[in-house]
Amino acid sequence: MKLRVLVRLKPGILDVQGAAVKRALVGLGFGELGDLRVGKVIEVELDAASPEAARARVAEMCRQLLANPILEDYTIETADDLAPRGAVR
Amino acid sequence: MKLRVLVRLKPGILDVQGAAVKRALVGLGFGELGDLRVGKVIEVELDAASPEAARARVAEMCRQLLANPILEDYTIETADDLAPRGAVR
Repeated sequence: MKLRVLVRLKPGILDVQGAAVKRALVGLGFGELGDLRVGKVIEVELDAASPEAARARVAEMCRQLLANPILEDYTIETADDLAPRGAVR
Repeated sequence: MKLRVLVRLKPGILDVQGAAVKRALVGLGFGELGDLRVGKVIEVELDAASPEAARARVAEMCRQLLANPILEDYTIETADDLAPRGAVR
């Protein structure tokens, strides 16, 4: 089963990397840019009896290792969410 | 307009960070883990006349700065893709 974890800084925490990237993009001529934030995406494949079980295990991974609960929020997406509805590469 | 860019190492490129995270998770008891890869997620807000225009501008940002075309692939997702179909926090 394939799942995706998005780990992002909590709202209100200064995203230094995002600010640096935004500054660089504005310097390249992308002046229409508003907010920009950078986070991590972790794509996981694991054996599980059901999507719910897989999601629960991945949530446990987030709590134990993948996300820092003081600074970061995480979102878990399953295969349904991953369907490429118009996503381009 | 809000868009999300996922930047990942191309298939076949060794993901050292992903391998380290996987090893740590297996050590924590997540033996059912298969593949694990770590990438970046960049959430962008920008002014654009249409979703297509926004997507084109973000693709240009990826080409100019956000992704390293030698090592990385990128995927752009728009608001439609971002609808939280069962995603949990």
